[in-house]
Amino acid sequence: MKNNLYDTIAAISTPAGEGGISVLRLSGENAFSLTEKVFSKDNSGIKKIDFQKTASHTIHFGYIFDNADITELIDEVLISVFKGPNSYTGENVVEISSHGGFYIAQKILSVLINTGARHAEPGEFTKRAFLNGRIDLSQAEAVADLIKAKTDSAHSSSIKQLEGALSEFAHKTRQEIINITSLVELELDFAEEGLEFVKADDIKAMITNLNSKLRRISESYIAGKVIRDGVNLVIAGKPNSGKSSLFNYLLNKNRAIVSSVAGTTRDYIEENIIINGVLFNLTDTAGLRSSDDEIESEGIRRSFSKIDEADMILYLTDSSEDEKFIEDDIANFENNFDKERSVLVFSKCDLKKVSSDKGTGVSLLNEETLENLKRLMSDKVKSAFIPFSKDEIVLTNIRHKFCLENVIRSLEEAITSVENKMSGEFISVDLRNALNHLGEITGEVTNDTILNNIFMNFCIGK
Amino acid sequence: MKNNLYDTIAAISTPAGEGGISVLRLSGENAFSLTEKVFSKDNSGIKKIDFQKTASHTIHFGYIFDNADITELIDEVLISVFKGPNSYTGENVVEISSHGGFYIAQKILSVLINTGARHAEPGEFTKRAFLNGRIDLSQAEAVADLIKAKTDSAHSSSIKQLEGALSEFAHKTRQEIINITSLVELELDFAEEGLEFVKADDIKAMITNLNSKLRRISESYIAGKVIRDGVNLVIAGKPNSGKSSLFNYLLNKNRAIVSSVAGTTRDYIEENIIINGVLFNLTDTAGLRSSDDEIESEGIRRSFSKIDEADMILYLTDSSEDEKFIEDDIANFENNFDKERSVLVFSKCDLKKVSSDKGTGVSLLNEETLENLKRLMSDKVKSAFIPFSKDEIVLTNIRHKFCLENVIRSLEEAITSVENKMSGEFISVDLRNALNHLGEITGEVTNDTILNNIFMNFCIGK
Repeated sequence: MKNNLYDTIAAISTPAGEGGISVLRLSGENAFSLTEKVFSKDNSGIKKIDFQKTASHTIHFGYIFDNADITELIDEVLISVFKGPNSYTGENVVEISSHGGFYIAQKILSVLINTGARHAEPGEFTKRAFLNGRIDLSQAEAVADLIKAKTDSAHSSSIKQLEGALSEFAHKTRQEIINITSLVELELDFAEEGLEFVKADDIKAMITNLNSKLRRISESYIAGKVIRDGVNLVIAGKPNSGKSSLFNYLLNKNRAIVSSVAGTTRDYIEENIIINGVLFNLTDTAGLRSSDDEIESEGIRRSFSKIDEADMILYLTDSSEDEKFIEDDIANFENNFDKERSVLVFSKCDLKKVSSDKGTGVSLLNEETLENLKRLMSDKVKSAFIPFSKDEIVLTNIRHKFCLENVIRSLEEAITSVENKMSGEFISVDLRNALNHLGEITGEVTNDTILNNIFMNFCIGK
Repeated sequence: MKNNLYDTIAAISTPAGEGGISVLRLSGENAFSLTEKVFSKDNSGIKKIDFQKTASHTIHFGYIFDNADITELIDEVLISVFKGPNSYTGENVVEISSHGGFYIAQKILSVLINTGARHAEPGEFTKRAFLNGRIDLSQAEAVADLIKAKTDSAHSSSIKQLEGALSEFAHKTRQEIINITSLVELELDFAEEGLEFVKADDIKAMITNLNSKLRRISESYIAGKVIRDGVNLVIAGKPNSGKSSLFNYLLNKNRAIVSSVAGTTRDYIEENIIINGVLFNLTDTAGLRSSDDEIESEGIRRSFSKIDEADMILYLTDSSEDEKFIEDDIANFENNFDKERSVLVFSKCDLKKVSSDKGTGVSLLNEETLENLKRLMSDKVKSAFIPFSKDEIVLTNIRHKFCLENVIRSLEEAITSVENKMSGEFISVDLRNALNHLGEITGEVTNDTILNNIFMNFCIGK
């Protein structure tokens, strides 16, 4: 019976911690009867209620006791009753809203487990919503993203996906592929009548056209990743160029230890911050130089590896150094850093100004220069990573990208088959592969491993 | 209009963090109309609902937009409607249950604030419940305690208080004092007929009897404090007697640094743990000896101060030391530590056994000795601090204790007045003072300062 779709699951759906309200959720065939056992409309413990006879979407005040024998009162609660299929999961659902705090919620959960409910696995409520056909897989995944959203853009791409934008796109694409497949299969019937050469070019054009649309969406994943997970930004530069000071300023706290001694930072330090609506994952690194200090050298090795992985780099050059130093450092920057994703920053520009248009001057003593830098950072992200309009679909999920890449590959194979004048059966097989991969996005085609991987990443109680 | 009782307040009532569900709560005259502005039954944004026309205690699925002009969808939500006076606060209440996660809940809150709601202050929902006569003050205070409960006993004393056990006691006591007052005032009328000497002894006996019951409850505060806040337990002893090892064992983690070097622990370390249902606030201290090391000496000074404040002390003597050392250490324990609240522990009893019945042997290598010690600790707490039966009222709140002490003092003054054969008017004044102080417990007598102090300690959203 374990993990039976129809057993009754329970979990605390609100975050752990002290708060005014905790909500515990039950879903399954026995959600009502299990709750009835430990619930009473007054504190006598015996004024029972029959939730089957109450209307769906109603709320009932009462008391939860520690077992069906009503020995000890646990809390005053509100019970929300949702009758399947009109519920989140499509099954009978009960939500028990108790006083906040970890102890009570845990206690009520353990009472319900003792009475016969099973601890829900992460994401199991949403998984049931999917399995019961309430939402498709891409919508289920949007729920998890929505919960984790930290910025406006992450939120709006998730809510769009939850509202079915990706599903709609998948369905439209599916229809186009089915149309092409019908043409190919129709062609099969008429093949002997010599029609195939006329149609082959048309079919190739249709598939090619579709594939280029799909590619645009597949490419949006880089933007989607930045929207969802943020931009990995590394602050790099020679020792004592002011990296940790800038890092602390951007975070608005004294996170990294700052001193005038070159080589203060050894371990890299990572923190998140939102600048002009863009989420940055900031990394402060050890200053780049050759060092005899073993710990510092290891730190520098790690700096280079962080720079390799970065989406974006701020390279700091100390404006107060002499001209030769600065000239060499600019050359070093230009030779070793990818222009697309790197910004040269002349730090400490209050001490001396660098007359070069290759970088931007910044001083922690001058708010305006800092605001300029922040705007430059967020603008660069928006133009480099998010060149998509509000109405376009942006993939935020690597699974969707993989599925879509498989669709594209199958369509490419179909094109090759057409070009090679293969028989219609072969083209049809390629197109049907493409349909299968497309179906994986919305979960029309799926298997347990895919499902488990997806719902594993949910929080308990969702 | 600020803090007007009738303006509409809003707050997120679930703890911050990622979870399946966030609940935002609105209360006040405009709770319905403010919600209606940004809510639509479908995602068109224009399918409005009139919550005044819906039944109370019903749930409505729909969509929240970012303002009344419906520009951007924020989330799919469930709206629970509670019509005053049948709600938590007694006013119109709306609960908006959205997908979990910090971003969405904050976004919905800011939308409602922009629409005209005010950020609720800590405990303001419960304060309104009190001001609107839904619960009395002692029940309101129980709500806060309930949320903070960490153990069974803390939970059951809070839920009893929420259910009105303390209120009921206050009302019964109030009735008794009123009865006595009537007798005294009746006496006033008949005073000239020479009845007073007969009645004076009766009245004194009645007040004395009442006062002894009140004293028992006032004394229960020590138990209540232990139930609510835990037992302050200090682990003390000579250096290297195994204090930090025992501390780590009890916590089940390597919290304190342990070494064979005497004087390893300098700063005291505090952690909480529940043993057999009793909450202990454990403190590991620096070993007691005279030291030349300045930091260690300061640590030892602090150890003594912690020992002075402790509810309970475990004093460790190292069983592996020679007989003379152990003899001296036992004498030291007996001379300097209060027997009532101290336990002598012979540590490292696997190395050598101390043949003394003055303490209990413990070895970290022997589970049984550790279980014995834990049982001894929790039993000692239960007998020393919690000698009250399940049905007795236990005060957990210092404010209630102060009120009750004032009641007792006023009653004592009444007794003195009776003994001094003062005129009935004076006795009556004392009795009325007692009634006033009693009324402060349930909030029948109160003022803004008292209320602000109480609700200040609540979490936001309750």
